[in-house]
Order: sequence, then C-alpha cells, then structure tokens
Amino acid sequence: MTSMGQDLVIGIDVGGQTAKCGVVDARGNIVAQTVISSENTTNAEEFVSALAEALNRIIVEAKAEGCIRGIGVGIPNGNFYTGVVENAVNLVWAKGGNIPFAKMLQEQMNGIPVSLTNDANAAAMGEMTYGAARGMKNFIMITLGTGVGSGIVINGEVVYGHDGFAGELGHTCAVRHNGRRCNCGKEGCLETYASATGVARTAREWLDMTDEPSLLRSLDNIKSKNVYEAAKEGDKLALRVFDYTGRILGEKFADFIEFSAPEAIVLFGGLARAREFLEEPIRKAMDENVIPLWRGKVKLVFSQLKESDAAILGASALAWEL
Amino acid sequence: MTSMGQDLVIGIDVGGQTAKCGVVDARGNIVAQTVISSENTTNAEEFVSALAEALNRIIVEAKAEGCIRGIGVGIPNGNFYTGVVENAVNLVWAKGGNIPFAKMLQEQMNGIPVSLTNDANAAAMGEMTYGAARGMKNFIMITLGTGVGSGIVINGEVVYGHDGFAGELGHTCAVRHNGRRCNCGKEGCLETYASATGVARTAREWLDMTDEPSLLRSLDNIKSKNVYEAAKEGDKLALRVFDYTGRILGEKFADFIEFSAPEAIVLFGGLARAREFLEEPIRKAMDENVIPLWRGKVKLVFSQLKESDAAILGASALAWEL
Repeated sequence: MTSMGQDLVIGIDVGGQTAKCGVVDARGNIVAQTVISSENTTNAEEFVSALAEALNRIIVEAKAEGCIRGIGVGIPNGNFYTGVVENAVNLVWAKGGNIPFAKMLQEQMNGIPVSLTNDANAAAMGEMTYGAARGMKNFIMITLGTGVGSGIVINGEVVYGHDGFAGELGHTCAVRHNGRRCNCGKEGCLETYASATGVARTAREWLDMTDEPSLLRSLDNIKSKNVYEAAKEGDKLALRVFDYTGRILGEKFADFIEFSAPEAIVLFGGLARAREFLEEPIRKAMDENVIPLWRGKVKLVFSQLKESDAAILGASALAWEL
Repeated sequence: MTSMGQDLVIGIDVGGQTAKCGVVDARGNIVAQTVISSENTTNAEEFVSALAEALNRIIVEAKAEGCIRGIGVGIPNGNFYTGVVENAVNLVWAKGGNIPFAKMLQEQMNGIPVSLTNDANAAAMGEMTYGAARGMKNFIMITLGTGVGSGIVINGEVVYGHDGFAGELGHTCAVRHNGRRCNCGKEGCLETYASATGVARTAREWLDMTDEPSLLRSLDNIKSKNVYEAAKEGDKLALRVFDYTGRILGEKFADFIEFSAPEAIVLFGGLARAREFLEEPIRKAMDENVIPLWRGKVKLVFSQLKESDAAILGASALAWEL
C-alpha cells in the first residue's frame, strides 16, 4: 500500500428512498458512484449488507482496493458521537429504533473506519471542504428541502452539542401563535413554512382564503415546483408566496446570527434554487431583524455544488477527519 | 520568582458605574479586592490610569508583586479577538468609540497580559471554572440583569463567532408583532420582556390596562424588586408577571436548545434570584416548545456564585487562559 493508496474516501448519503454512494478523491472528484434502494427491506442487517456490496462494487470500479481511508455517512438522525441512528422514522429498515449503523457497516467493510452524522451536518462539511464555505470557520448551513435542516460550524468545526444532535434550526419557532402543525408534534416550526412542502402549503392556504386569480388555481396537487414555475410566469400570488417564505427565513436568520455571529449563512437544497425570488426578501428581513452590529455584514451564500454530487461530497468530507 | 509566584490572576468587571477588581487564586478565592468608579471621567486614558493604580494597590495588599499571571476583563462590548471595546454607549469614558482597552491596560501594568470579553461571556467562564457549570462542555449562560446577556459554551469553549461578538441572545425576537421597543433599535427583543427592567415594564403595563387590585398600585416608580416583593406577599398580578416572564424565557430557551443542544441553561443575575417564581414557568414553556428529543432532558441551573464575587471570578477565569 503506497501513501497515495490512502488518498480516497467514500461518501454515502442515506435517504428514505435511496442511498447514494461515491468514491471521492482529495480534490472532491467523485471517481465512482452508485445508488441503491433504501426502502426494499425492513431489516437493518440486510440493508447494511446490500450497502457494503454496493461499496465493494464501486471500490473495484475505482481500482481502489486497499486505498480507502474511511467512510463518511450522512443519514437522518445519525448521532456523530455514537455512530447510532436513533429514532429515524423515515428509514423503513431502521423502524424508528436505535441502530448501531457505523459499527455494523465497519464490520461489513473489513474494519474501514466509518463516521456518520445527519444529512445537514454532512452538507455543512461538504461546503466547508469543497464548496461555498471553503476557508470559512464560522457559518450556518441551511438545507431547504422537504424539511429545513441545518449544520452549524463554529471555529471550523461542526457543532454536535451535548448529545450529538445540535442544529435543529428547522424546528425553532417561526410563528408563535396559531402556527402550522409540524411532523415533530410542535406548532409553528420554521420548516412548516420555509421548506418545499411549506411553500406548497402556503400557496394552497392562500388560494383557499381568497378568490385572487392565479395560474396555480388550475392544479390539483400543488407542489413547490409549481409555485416556482408560476412565479417565473409573473403570477402575483406565487411571487408573494416566495416573499413571505423569504421573510420568515430572514427573520429567523437574524436570531441565528445573534447566537453564533457567523460569517455567512449558506443555503442549499431544492428550494434554494428559487434564489431569484428568495434572496431579496431574505436579505431584507435579515437586516431588519438583526441588531445594528451585524446589519449588512453577514453574507448570504447560495451553494454552488451540484445537488446530485453534494450529498456524497458532504458525507465524504466526514471521512477525511477519520 | 517561584513557580507558586505565577499562580494568581486578576479579574475586573467593568460596568457603567463601577469597576470591580480582585486578585484571585487558582481555587477561586478572592484574596484582595477593590471597587473604583467608572463614571468619573470621560477620558479613556484617565480611566485606565485610575484602574491600573487600583490594581497595583490590591497587588501590594495581596503581596502578589511579580506573581500575576494575567488580567481578565469582563466589559460591555468587549471584543475578545481584538481587545477593543467597540461602541460601548453605556461607558462614559468610552464615548461609544473604539478603545484598544486591553493594549492600554497592559501597557499601564508593565506588560502583564490582558484579555477581555463581554460581561456575559465572562460570567460563563466563571461558571465553568468555579461554579454551577464545572465539568460541563456545552451550556448556555443567561444573565438576567438590567438587560439579558448570554455566553454560549460549546465543546468547553466560549463561542465568539466570526467577529468576536457572538451570543446576543437578549436581542433575539421574543414577540414578533407589536413587540416592545428595545434600546438596540429593534422591537420585541427578549430583553425588553425578560430582564429586570422588562419585569417592571410588564407590571406597569398591566396595571395601566386593568383595574385589578395589586399591592403595586400604591407605588410611584415600580422596579423589579417591588414586583418580587409583591409576589412574595401573594399579589396575584405580580405572580402573573413572573409567570409571563418565565414563559417568554422558556419559549426562547427551546429555540436555543435546538441550536446548540446544551447540557444545561445556567441563569445568573439579579432577576435569577426570583427563582421560586420563574423556575416552574420557564421549565414548562421550555418543554412545551422544544422538540421531543430534548423534552425534560436539558438542565435548568441557577448559579450558586455569590453575585458580588461572580463578576470578578468570571473575568479572572479568562486570565487563566493567557
């Protein structure tokens, strides 16, 4: 084994439907990759075996046998400290139990070290290692997808907190009274407003409440994508939905800034592609709601990483620390 | 100079009216102390000279000549990174300008190293070094005084953020719409409700709005101390003021927990002495507003440090790091 031989890692992004896996080099190139289903089995052993098989396939494909320094995994409810996936209700093979995932995968992979964290923390690592936050020591990553995830970096390190689960900014309170019901059981959480599902929900609510004409009226099941397309066409209601979403994000970002004084807030995920409609209202609400000290000083950055690669890259960034 | 000779530090707590100074040993005993006025001069040079003179007096008193390892200063708007006091509008000698305080004091003290941070961060250092947070690596210190200050500790280190000013939790938003005007220029900041002045303000507002009988009606200028004393007498309005104050604190604490997953929230300051009226509503609102993961799991700790000592001890804790 040469010294070059250790210069590859594996990144895995495990979601409810799929697990994306890639062999990654030190420059952030994905030299081999594959995707497997993560909803075919309700058995954790079986899922980990299938995953190990897929990894061995791409290791061979990348001619990287004996050269993998470590494996990083981004996974919902992944506890960085323990390597355990805890109460992940959206992973059928985990059944909401406590799965010692890192240990299981490491055993199946002949002892290659495995480190895991939740998907938003992995995304933050990815941005810091390969992306928009390169060189930044203090930033907050916000992932705007089905939900709102977050990864907080302070002094160059992801914040895990006392128990390994820090950074649940999607569940901070955006609307105190009569807020929307969240999957977590609370009301008014940021992610019920500022996620892709939140945007669709806002549009549906507003269509119900008024007679205002809108391109969205003709649709049966409105998704955030439809709202985006309508906004592109100049649809006034759709544009106001993004204004409102951006304002709620900006208001909460002001609170986050007052917590950790980051250099930047980095946005990533499907909804972040609506930058043209979100950036201005976010910036405005952020500046109106933050104390003068930080007004106009905190960068608002939209991730430049290709979304299909970013999940793998983020997870792989974890492995370089091993 | 023996090795024992380096085992003392100085802690200074600079406020708007006074500067409290103490020589402190490694066990947290204040072996000599003094207080000087901080409102006698509008000239920074003069204030620093007076301070140095006071320090030299207590060094002699403690027989500690040549034995001081460092000087730690807790001071409003103190930037840990630069040693500069920036825009401290409440310090008459600073006149809201930028004062290179650490450098000036170090020069006056024959080169003894000086480190400074804001008062709430110093309080957090004090709790971690000598107080209720000993052994904790992740906690949030909340100081309930004239305002609401905060010091955030993650992985055993105070969070300073990108610019040195992290931890302005008193200015996160507690009431989004029609919130009270804050000195910072914003509306609805936590400190307009949950500080000593906030408590008095709540009482005055409620007395104005209703005819409800209350012991407080007979008073001209209600202070938080009066509200506390009335609550002690069983005054219903005063008791509700504390319920309300506690609820607002608990709601915001839930957001803070979702940020950094601390082991504990530590309360300190004059208003924290109303523990008998605040603890239950804080705990209730905290648990109702945090995601299930942390429900009932984050400790709520009231500082046990003597308030007169705590400010000096907190600042002195900084000096041990020098």
